[in-house]
This record gives sequence, structure tokens and C-alpha cells, in this order.
Amino acid sequence: MRIGQGFDAHRFAAPDADRPLWLACLPWDGTGIEGDSDGDVAAHALIDALLSAAGLGDIGTLFGVGSDSAGAGQHGGAMLRHTASVLAEHGFAPVSASVVIIGNRPKIGSRRVQAEQALSAAVGCPVSVTATTTDGMGFTGAGQGVAAIANALVAETGR
Amino acid sequence: MRIGQGFDAHRFAAPDADRPLWLACLPWDGTGIEGDSDGDVAAHALIDALLSAAGLGDIGTLFGVGSDSAGAGQHGGAMLRHTASVLAEHGFAPVSASVVIIGNRPKIGSRRVQAEQALSAAVGCPVSVTATTTDGMGFTGAGQGVAAIANALVAETGR
Amino acid sequence: MRIGQGFDAHRFAAPDADRPLWLACLPWDGTGIEGDSDGDVAAHALIDALLSAAGLGDIGTLFGVGSDSAGAGQHGGAMLRHTASVLAEHGFAPVSASVVIIGNRPKIGSRRVQAEQALSAAVGCPVSVTATTTDGMGFTGAGQGVAAIANALVAETGR
Repeated sequence: MRIGQGFDAHRFAAPDADRPLWLACLPWDGTGIEGDSDGDVAAHALIDALLSAAGLGDIGTLFGVGSDSAGAGQHGGAMLRHTASVLAEHGFAPVSASVVIIGNRPKIGSRRVQAEQALSAAVGCPVSVTATTTDGMGFTGAGQGVAAIANALVAETGR
Repeated sequence: MRIGQGFDAHRFAAPDADRPLWLACLPWDGTGIEGDSDGDVAAHALIDALLSAAGLGDIGTLFGVGSDSAGAGQHGGAMLRHTASVLAEHGFAPVSASVVIIGNRPKIGSRRVQAEQALSAAVGCPVSVTATTTDGMGFTGAGQGVAAIANALVAETGR
Repeated sequence: MRIGQGFDAHRFAAPDADRPLWLACLPWDGTGIEGDSDGDVAAHALIDALLSAAGLGDIGTLFGVGSDSAGAGQHGGAMLRHTASVLAEHGFAPVSASVVIIGNRPKIGSRRVQAEQALSAAVGCPVSVTATTTDGMGFTGAGQGVAAIANALVAETGR
């Protein structure tokens, strides 16, 4: 059994950017999050938690960085599914994972279970979602962006 | 074995608020932390870590949000004990948990062991406490508030 | 199996401070990180994750605080090796650990594997490193300093 930690933070796009909001593999109302991919910080933090648990690098290693990277334009769900397939190729299976979403919006509560289902389906193990704010403090409290902290357990299954 | 992640942050109350300071299930000298409950961010981050490890939602799911919620006016210790009982009802047992307290005050060091004992007694497994600052940076460094990051392992025992 | 969480954050030294930059047990180009030790926040967060997993306090308990502490002037690698020896003395063995480095510089990517090798050698178990930024937000985004979040699993081996 091996453990991994992940973190990510991205800015909200400008209100007039007409960018859709994706978080935890779901679409939400409101202006989106910037990023070369869909900006889904919950998915990205989970990808880093899973890759680090398996000792397979990080999201930059797997998908590259920038607007011409393999992750560019991709949804978090597709990136998570690819991550899970890379773990399987290397003889690792996700056992359990969890992600905290930190930000003023969107309000996760009413769709928390749906977010968990979407993330669990993409990863292939139970993934829990909790959500909180920073009480108006810091960059998430100022509404500049959203952050996510994730952890994961993976088991070595052998190839 | 399943893993969970938790995070919480709250503001310090105004110096003239005459609000007692509770953190890690202990009373401390100095002005308190705001919140509908006692503002104990260490307890709250642990609650989210435990609930997410067990796939049972988050602190908002269990206690509600706001001044008329089930958590309103409650101490972190009572909320942690209730969380542990909900885990047991659903066939989960806490195995191990850990929380980092991030802030300028109170100084945890001299009562770190006492805090660990109080949290461990409430949760029903070994809970470790570490404490650090952000070197004067960010909202905790400015003394605006306190943050906590927690993780937890739980075992499925069956009902 | 027990779990631990660690966090640390330090400021960058002034550009004219002529202080070497150490992070994840490696030297890097650019101005260093402040601290009584070498300021290696990745090593420090891992030390807290390992100590808390074993229930053996935190970096302040083990090394003291301030310019006359046991950690003063020490490199993160030496502190990690001492931490691992203290765990062994108390009947604990590190199983797996992971650390996220959050900051604008240094760019970890090209030396990520080297950093993992250095940390793994110091700890005595696989240690993964991921790296990310906060997209220009907060104190790390402003280039004020660097933060690290770590987790660890340890096993009780008996003395």
C-alpha cells in the first residue's frame, strides 16, 4: 500500500470570458476556471495524488505543460481515466482517494454525491469529496480562484 | 483501508469580542476563532478527513451550515465524538489520523501532547498534532485566522 | 499502519542575501529560502508527516526552534535521516511518503526524479515529489516563498 498527496490551484476566468465551469468532473453554473485543460483543480489534485502514490511522476510528467500539451483542452474526467490506465499498466490499482475543494463557488453541497460518483467512476475506486471555504481569507476567500488538496492510497498488484 | 483528507480555516474574532479560544479540543488563552460552533478548525478538518475516508459526506452534510445548524454552539470534541459514532453505525472504525495546525497563535508546542490526547479520546484512535506557521506570509501569517489540514485512515469493520 | 500529515512554508531570502537554495535535499540555482536550517520546506513537511504518523511529535519537538536549535544550520537530508533513525528506535518503519512542492521557483520538473531519489534515500522508503504553482495567487504566487504539503504511512515493527 502506497500513499500520495496532490494539490492544485487555478484562477477564475474573467466574468466576460464565456468559459464554462468544470469542477470534480461536473459542469456548474457560473464563470469557469482558467487553465490549458478545463481547469478542474479537483481532478488535477487527484491525478497528482494517484501518480505520486504509484511513484509515476506528476500531472506535468504525464500530460505536459502549456497550451500544446497532451492535457490541453481535455476534461478532468478524461485525464483521470488516462491516469488510472497508466497506473494499471505499471501494476498499481487505486484503493481509495479523497479531495477537498476550497473556494467560494460553486457551492458543492447539493451535488457532492454526484461529484463523488463522477470522480469514482473515472478513477475506479471510491473517491470522496469535501468542500470548504477560507472564511473570506486568502486568495480563495477573495474569490480569485479555487484550490484542491487530495490524497490517495494505491496497491501494488504486479503487472 | 480507506483514506480521507480534510481542511478548514476560520478567522480570529475581534479582540473585543470576548470569545473564548478553542483549538484541538482544548481551551487556550487569547481571543477566540469565529464560527457557528466553537471555531475549532483542527477538530473540523479531522471530521472532514474521517467522514471522507468513510465516504459519509462532510461536516456540512452531518451538522448543517449556519447559526441554526446542529453544529451551532457545539465544541469540536462533541462534534468529533458524534462523527466517530456515525462511522461506527456505518461499519467503519478510525485507524489513525493526523492534523497540522497552521497559524501564529496559540503556540501549540507545550500542550501538543495534551491536544493529541483530547483528539484521540474523541475520535477513538491515535490522532497526531503538528503545528507550524507560514513565516509571516498569507492570511495565517498576517494573523487573520487559523487553518488546519488533516488526513485519516479508516477500516471497514462491517455493521 | 499509521498515517501522518505535514506542512511547511518559508520565505525566500533577499536576492542580495547570497544564501544557497536547497529544496527536496538538492541544491538549486537562485536565491535561497530563509530558515534556521537550510529552509528545505519539502524535507521539513516530510519530517512532520513521518513524526506524526509515528506519534513522535513534530519537527519542533525533535530539533527545537530557533537559531540555537539542533536543526540550526542543518540540511534537510541530515534532518530526515535523523528522523528515520528516531522512528526506527521507537519501532516504526516508513512505508511510503509523498510531498507536493508549491511555488514559482525552482522549476522541479527536470530534476523531479533526482529529488525523489535523494528524499527516498534519506527516509528509507519510496518518497514521491510533485510540484505545482498557485497560478500567481497567494503568497507562493507572489513569489514570497515556498510551501510543501506531505503525507506518510508508517508501519509498527516493534522495537
